[in-house]
Amino acid sequence: MNFLSDNARGAVPEILRAMAAAGEGAYAPYGDDAITALLEHRFAELFERAVAVFPVISGTAANALSLATLVPPHGAIFCHADSHIATDECSAVESFTHGAKLVGVESPHAKLTPAAIEEALMRFQKGLVHHAQPAAISLTQSSEFGTVYRLDEIRALSDCARRHGMALHMDGARFANALARLGCTPAEATWRAGVDVLSFGATKNGAVGAEAVIFFAPGNTRDFAFRRKKAGHLISKMRFVSAQLEAYVKDGLWLKLAARANASAALLAEGLAQVPGAEIAHPVEANAVFVRLPDAVVARLREAGAQFYDWAPPKDGRTLVRLVASFATPESDVAKFLEIALG
Amino acid sequence: MNFLSDNARGAVPEILRAMAAAGEGAYAPYGDDAITALLEHRFAELFERAVAVFPVISGTAANALSLATLVPPHGAIFCHADSHIATDECSAVESFTHGAKLVGVESPHAKLTPAAIEEALMRFQKGLVHHAQPAAISLTQSSEFGTVYRLDEIRALSDCARRHGMALHMDGARFANALARLGCTPAEATWRAGVDVLSFGATKNGAVGAEAVIFFAPGNTRDFAFRRKKAGHLISKMRFVSAQLEAYVKDGLWLKLAARANASAALLAEGLAQVPGAEIAHPVEANAVFVRLPDAVVARLREAGAQFYDWAPPKDGRTLVRLVASFATPESDVAKFLEIALG
Amino acid sequence: MNFLSDNARGAVPEILRAMAAAGEGAYAPYGDDAITALLEHRFAELFERAVAVFPVISGTAANALSLATLVPPHGAIFCHADSHIATDECSAVESFTHGAKLVGVESPHAKLTPAAIEEALMRFQKGLVHHAQPAAISLTQSSEFGTVYRLDEIRALSDCARRHGMALHMDGARFANALARLGCTPAEATWRAGVDVLSFGATKNGAVGAEAVIFFAPGNTRDFAFRRKKAGHLISKMRFVSAQLEAYVKDGLWLKLAARANASAALLAEGLAQVPGAEIAHPVEANAVFVRLPDAVVARLREAGAQFYDWAPPKDGRTLVRLVASFATPESDVAKFLEIALG
Amino acid sequence: MNFLSDNARGAVPEILRAMAAAGEGAYAPYGDDAITALLEHRFAELFERAVAVFPVISGTAANALSLATLVPPHGAIFCHADSHIATDECSAVESFTHGAKLVGVESPHAKLTPAAIEEALMRFQKGLVHHAQPAAISLTQSSEFGTVYRLDEIRALSDCARRHGMALHMDGARFANALARLGCTPAEATWRAGVDVLSFGATKNGAVGAEAVIFFAPGNTRDFAFRRKKAGHLISKMRFVSAQLEAYVKDGLWLKLAARANASAALLAEGLAQVPGAEIAHPVEANAVFVRLPDAVVARLREAGAQFYDWAPPKDGRTLVRLVASFATPESDVAKFLEIALG
Repeated sequence: MNFLSDNARGAVPEILRAMAAAGEGAYAPYGDDAITALLEHRFAELFERAVAVFPVISGTAANALSLATLVPPHGAIFCHADSHIATDECSAVESFTHGAKLVGVESPHAKLTPAAIEEALMRFQKGLVHHAQPAAISLTQSSEFGTVYRLDEIRALSDCARRHGMALHMDGARFANALARLGCTPAEATWRAGVDVLSFGATKNGAVGAEAVIFFAPGNTRDFAFRRKKAGHLISKMRFVSAQLEAYVKDGLWLKLAARANASAALLAEGLAQVPGAEIAHPVEANAVFVRLPDAVVARLREAGAQFYDWAPPKDGRTLVRLVASFATPESDVAKFLEIALG
Repeated sequence: MNFLSDNARGAVPEILRAMAAAGEGAYAPYGDDAITALLEHRFAELFERAVAVFPVISGTAANALSLATLVPPHGAIFCHADSHIATDECSAVESFTHGAKLVGVESPHAKLTPAAIEEALMRFQKGLVHHAQPAAISLTQSSEFGTVYRLDEIRALSDCARRHGMALHMDGARFANALARLGCTPAEATWRAGVDVLSFGATKNGAVGAEAVIFFAPGNTRDFAFRRKKAGHLISKMRFVSAQLEAYVKDGLWLKLAARANASAALLAEGLAQVPGAEIAHPVEANAVFVRLPDAVVARLREAGAQFYDWAPPKDGRTLVRLVASFATPESDVAKFLEIALG
Repeated sequence: MNFLSDNARGAVPEILRAMAAAGEGAYAPYGDDAITALLEHRFAELFERAVAVFPVISGTAANALSLATLVPPHGAIFCHADSHIATDECSAVESFTHGAKLVGVESPHAKLTPAAIEEALMRFQKGLVHHAQPAAISLTQSSEFGTVYRLDEIRALSDCARRHGMALHMDGARFANALARLGCTPAEATWRAGVDVLSFGATKNGAVGAEAVIFFAPGNTRDFAFRRKKAGHLISKMRFVSAQLEAYVKDGLWLKLAARANASAALLAEGLAQVPGAEIAHPVEANAVFVRLPDAVVARLREAGAQFYDWAPPKDGRTLVRLVASFATPESDVAKFLEIALG
Repeated sequence: MNFLSDNARGAVPEILRAMAAAGEGAYAPYGDDAITALLEHRFAELFERAVAVFPVISGTAANALSLATLVPPHGAIFCHADSHIATDECSAVESFTHGAKLVGVESPHAKLTPAAIEEALMRFQKGLVHHAQPAAISLTQSSEFGTVYRLDEIRALSDCARRHGMALHMDGARFANALARLGCTPAEATWRAGVDVLSFGATKNGAVGAEAVIFFAPGNTRDFAFRRKKAGHLISKMRFVSAQLEAYVKDGLWLKLAARANASAALLAEGLAQVPGAEIAHPVEANAVFVRLPDAVVARLREAGAQFYDWAPPKDGRTLVRLVASFATPESDVAKFLEIALG
């Protein structure tokens, strides 16, 4: 019963097989190989437009390299105060950008709102040399609290970004989970709603280690290639990463895996809502459940071997915990977990 | 009637004379001169203990170099959300620290409280590699809103810093104004209350351009000297900066100048409190007055040539403005300003 | 006939199988897994002493993170002017160190000598704030020109490093090839000869993407863990990298693979020496051959489909080319290449 | 007899008086004052074209900020191996550029040649992501060894820069000394010869602390203003720096001061050439003399209180020393120095 993270599981067979196949023969290193070359076509198809695609091997790299490309060292990036880039990537973004300012904004359920950003912007006057300059908004889809931005919400953030001359970045470490929820096309969920650059994650949803940075204005990737190289993220046998991404999106595998994870989370939420004293803390729209559980229930679950993170210290007899379901969460784990929780 | 900033005025004659005198003869450059060598003795006397003193020429340099010395690139610095380092130094601290995270904390009157810091610390777990590591608290004395920390308030912040293994930095761009208010010794206001490093400002209070970074643990200045050099802040004719600092603290000049500025601000506040519809926004404890004035009053003052900054857009018929008095504010300017304001 | 690089080949079956096995079950992410935990034991055994081991996924990351840990932003690193860190990692080391100076030293066959370093040191006086401070020597074993440092040569560099208070770093992207040549133990080739930190490469010699940074003073890894995190190199499913390293060193696999590559290079060199007008440019001691070949021979080889890099523009009817043999170079490719070369 | 550096002397009365005058009245801070506003006109006149002028207070700041504006973090800067930016500014340029590579080139008398740069460029292929990208050439005028580039030599470097898509930066810490020697106009010595950005120094030649960064394409200063602010070099009472620059160039003061320094150096060189066993090491074209003197002569001079730097350890009975003359070197010091040297 491992609900620590979707990272806790290994990789799906389709992806491991693709890697093994990629190992055959000899290719030019550093991404100048045929497998990597095909990626741009594959993603162009997926997103219904020409895109520039850069494989990397971690979500932190994808986010930090994207933002460093979009934002000057004197820039300010507006993100949620609970976003991964603000709280869980040490100070990677500040470093990759050579000192840009990350402004953490508070708003409900880890979802940014234009109003919250407008208020934060009051401290950063455009053109005034004393102030870090508004340069990008970064939203996480699905969010760190398991919620999902609707398309009109993304568009509203994009309008806010445009109004202030900022770029819009989407941290899509769990983009598949969001898309499985929204039921729209990848294009609708990104550039058609105004997203400029996407950190497209595969690792949490069944890959070994594969993320892609996608620029929807492929002619304007600026110095991304040099930044990736300098950061040690242009790996020599790139084909092994590219092969993962190829297998991941082939025949809708990614969305099937995400739908499975989302369904497990929904089941968990539905069941836990029945636990006396339990309270679902955020709408369960993707693959994570945040729930306040009576401390006795938490203790009972841990005793039975369930693994999950406390999200805050116990308070008034209850603890806020996070449960993450994944592409590989066994149905039996969910059932057993609920059985114990319900006592 | 210039109330824009204490930076708007030039320099006092004592300091200009000291600079002229420092120009005589030939000295070793880059701070290896006799005038600079004397500074440590002068400041040791002033602070009643051995100190390490590094002259620099801007407050941003003093703050950013201090904090970069105290905080690793993966560190987090807790400061007020309205502090100068957070809002008025572009992203200097993030750059000088090579990417440390500046965490802006909200609390009344631009004064940090241990409670506000403790809450912010919830997102930064010590030892966890995913989180920026709590490394320093930086407070501004007197604060950006013209308030002054009492000694017990500084001690409480120092206790909080110690508890979490953090250093305590004081941005003393207006340290003289705070001290003039507190009426205690420099030692009591700093290291005896737990301050580790002080940005000691002279520029705003009558110097041409002179600040000093003071380490109260003189044996532990780490790589400050190299950082200053690399940043272009080890100037070749350092004696001209050192001479300013020497003249500034000689015979209590600095405190006389600050007391004069504080008195002007007190007069302003007292008078403005009588203006119908006016509201003093923060306790006036140093040389700045934040006051909400009816828009008609603001317009009348500007028409008469008064210079000051709006601190927020007009709201409900009033505007929050900032008035800064300085060592050189003419009494007649204060009188005239009040006369016009009172209509 | 791909002799572009040892990076051009995929991965050996032992490593791919280990990765597949690592995918089973659920583990804590970010290296807190059982497979990664075992690595320190495995490498302690291999190196006959306690070590700290940090898996990463690229050689640039291994080198740049190592050196950034050893060297302050005001430091100077002495390396060969033709070293990988100086010429083939863009300016990664300068960035990761936040601006340390990379001093490229000239000496024959891409091997550093104490004399060459001593001369370079003349420009960098210890303790003088105007000079970048000597902080590390970085040597590449085997070198970029396919030569191998003897143990006494490493010791001499180590003595030089000690004398000047510098650390000794070894870029071991091809450490296996060097060791296969030297015929000594890993301990003798590293810490017993004075190496402080080793970038231990597996990628070029049969892995998918796996390098390890090894600190021989395991209690003094400083802030490496934070640096790795901030750089996006603490990958979430770390067990897949650790599994590669484990399989790589198990039962001497790594040395068998390296010996095979070295033998192919030796065969190539032996054969090419017979080509009229050919000249071996550097001693062939590992898996790379640098040879000046008549332009007609070069053309003939390329026409036949052989792939390799020119290392300099043609001159006087000959071109210096680089041929790299790998763990997977088919014997038939070597034979065919020589047949064509010999005409 | 202080020949340590032209930095060893204070400031000329004209400049001290200008500073005192600048102290009168109240101005907007941070360079939004009338004195600073006039500078662009003054320098436009001086250089016979529109320019953008940014005052700073140290030569290191001027150089590092200029180059950081011209060069991306993945760029390479070609300079002389003995240039100030390579050897005497710690690793300021590497830091300000966020990790660009400084490539030190060897050529006689500290003067860069196109041939030496072309050879260094062999290691940096344009467009190849593995290589730092050629981005700027930086020459020092007058050079660190007291030599002066002729106009055709500057033009040849400019041609080389253009050919490779690089910018041309001039470190003019001693620009006045070079100009006094060349006898041409400031325009001829800079943009007409292809210089893009000039670090215009006043400090070494009679100012308290004042340098100006001059962009000859004033519409393309990129983010210089933000970089200066972030580096703590936008000082609040900028008018005191601007006033120095204004006084410095007024009525040709700067060239008179430089001519005096050059003349002293020429006298020294002429006299020392008569010392038995002495050898002038570099052409004396500005205000510095590099001379090999018999060790006995060196000892005699030091005993008599002469101050100067050894430039290399004693060798074969002689020592290479550096003597710098300044705007304020007393004629009697030169005479006395020569008298002692000549025994």
